[in-house]
Amino acid sequence: MNPVAPILLTPGPLTTSARTRQAMMMDWGSWDRDFNQMTASVREQLLAIIHGEASHYCIPLQGSGTFAVEAAIGTLVPRNGKVLVLVNGAYGQRLAKICSVLGLAFSTFETAEDQPTTGEDVDRLLREDAAITHVALIHCETSTGILNPLNAIAEVVAKHGKRLIIDAMSSFGALSIDAREVPFEALIAASGKCLEGVPGMGFVFASKEALDQAQGNSRSLAMDLHDQHVYMAKTGQWRFTPPTHVVAALHEALLQYAEEGGLPARHKRYQQNCDTLLEGMQQLGLRSFIPAAIQAPIIVTFHAPDSPNYAFRDFYERVKAKGFILYPGKLTQVETFRVGCIGCVDSHGMQAAVDAIGQALRDMQAL
Amino acid sequence: MNPVAPILLTPGPLTTSARTRQAMMMDWGSWDRDFNQMTASVREQLLAIIHGEASHYCIPLQGSGTFAVEAAIGTLVPRNGKVLVLVNGAYGQRLAKICSVLGLAFSTFETAEDQPTTGEDVDRLLREDAAITHVALIHCETSTGILNPLNAIAEVVAKHGKRLIIDAMSSFGALSIDAREVPFEALIAASGKCLEGVPGMGFVFASKEALDQAQGNSRSLAMDLHDQHVYMAKTGQWRFTPPTHVVAALHEALLQYAEEGGLPARHKRYQQNCDTLLEGMQQLGLRSFIPAAIQAPIIVTFHAPDSPNYAFRDFYERVKAKGFILYPGKLTQVETFRVGCIGCVDSHGMQAAVDAIGQALRDMQAL
Repeated sequence: MNPVAPILLTPGPLTTSARTRQAMMMDWGSWDRDFNQMTASVREQLLAIIHGEASHYCIPLQGSGTFAVEAAIGTLVPRNGKVLVLVNGAYGQRLAKICSVLGLAFSTFETAEDQPTTGEDVDRLLREDAAITHVALIHCETSTGILNPLNAIAEVVAKHGKRLIIDAMSSFGALSIDAREVPFEALIAASGKCLEGVPGMGFVFASKEALDQAQGNSRSLAMDLHDQHVYMAKTGQWRFTPPTHVVAALHEALLQYAEEGGLPARHKRYQQNCDTLLEGMQQLGLRSFIPAAIQAPIIVTFHAPDSPNYAFRDFYERVKAKGFILYPGKLTQVETFRVGCIGCVDSHGMQAAVDAIGQALRDMQAL
Repeated sequence: MNPVAPILLTPGPLTTSARTRQAMMMDWGSWDRDFNQMTASVREQLLAIIHGEASHYCIPLQGSGTFAVEAAIGTLVPRNGKVLVLVNGAYGQRLAKICSVLGLAFSTFETAEDQPTTGEDVDRLLREDAAITHVALIHCETSTGILNPLNAIAEVVAKHGKRLIIDAMSSFGALSIDAREVPFEALIAASGKCLEGVPGMGFVFASKEALDQAQGNSRSLAMDLHDQHVYMAKTGQWRFTPPTHVVAALHEALLQYAEEGGLPARHKRYQQNCDTLLEGMQQLGLRSFIPAAIQAPIIVTFHAPDSPNYAFRDFYERVKAKGFILYPGKLTQVETFRVGCIGCVDSHGMQAAVDAIGQALRDMQAL
């Protein structure tokens, strides 16, 4: 195994600060008041990011982000509900899969992987099918890096009196979402993404009104967010053993988030990372897959070099040897690779990554 | 918050070694070969502990131990199955609750909290109800510390041609369970218990034959162990973002487990911890709740002192100030508190804990 820690240019797990990791050097009793205070502080800080104190609960959940997404759908969509799932990539498909496995009625609307869903699409779809109760979408689709127009879609969904479920896994904390302006029933994210914590827990911002009515919806004990919330409100504790070190790391990461300047500063740094990456790669002659106007500053998909000498595995290992972990492409039709812009890294780091990529491709004679 | 790390005398999260926590100081790419090798190594080491290489798969799962228990039941019990749940404490009740929420047919057999279920009980119950397909039990019931006679029950269940699901959360790694001798369909445990890792993942040892037939049983995507296993077997990766730092900590904890001498050494240390605790507390005049013959060396329930000056919260804070975190009792009828024997602590540590408890009670004038 590699004793030197590389920089992760992946969409989470990502590179964390030494200070965040250092917070895991202590063991916490999950029943203890000190730990409960840390959980409460994490929930308060998360709610403040979306200005959701008046309208939403923040409910943390053990497991990966997908666990929290399934928990949100399973808890909030009543058994006679119907979900319209907007799909333009692998994570949208996963939303549909969750509805299917949970036995919920649903339909999908799929656009090409480089084409956002629009408010007009959703307006038409809701007019065509009155049975739909909920709309679910991916804010930034990590499989390509495309940004879907959340505000326009939220407005249309609210106009129809329907409820919105937002998977904001890879955008939360970096792209602004204000619960006072954007109506939604649930927004889901996780510890190990733009907040730069370590992976191991997700969290759901759930409309107070909706969650209060959600008792008995869930067909899972572990992923029942109503139960999780009621227990935590009553005792200050997690229902089942929390990932204490992950919570401590997220708490420390949130302190650093505030010190850096909160969402505007986080967004600015990631945008600079993305700009540095796009410019540098363009100079190398590498084309990005998503048009600039709908490219989120989270992760960028690049076309592989059009060279017989290129092979992803070889390329990946060469760049890794220079200290950077890339991410494979997730498109079936086109050969691509992905580079994340998020994590504890700045534009100097991104320039170094571009330099490593250029050197690796030159060494492969693939440029 | 308390800057000095106390010793956790709790049933998990518990005290880990500095070396185990230090393994969390590096970030890992979840797609990277180095991390996949670490996952594979963890699974191999876990299987070796139960000698299950030939008969069982080891399937890790994100989340707390309860997530893994629900996943095992939800994946392995077919929808027309019926579960007999053996209950003598809160965790047995949780097994029944999981069956109920999953919509499975089940019945419960409840004994008093200080009375183990016996093989004879199970033999009679299986003769009385031919519809039962699975028996589920808690090996060591953490709510009291009572040990249920696993081997006798497993033999009876096998004799009837039924299938056994064992929640071995708090015993796995310290109490011997040999898959070559004890027939079971699933055994569930977690990272943050007797292996002395940090909390954040569980794992299920599932009979190869049973898991291979379990496709489509699960009504959850995130907790579908068949899907998790098939994907991991094919790619070496977790299906959804793994808690990378928790996995790294467990890997390091397993190396130390082997260096200490494996299960016999771990059991011996915990037994010494338990003996030191029981002797010391007896000298203080404090009585344990469970008879010695059925007391597992995992966690001990003590009757609270019979004094008007005793109050658990005050007692807890005084002992915490001396560096030890205790655990509240979980019995409804009797006032108790609990002291764990597990974690990175030896009999000197346990003696220090007894001394702290004695001093606290004397200071309270409650002895």
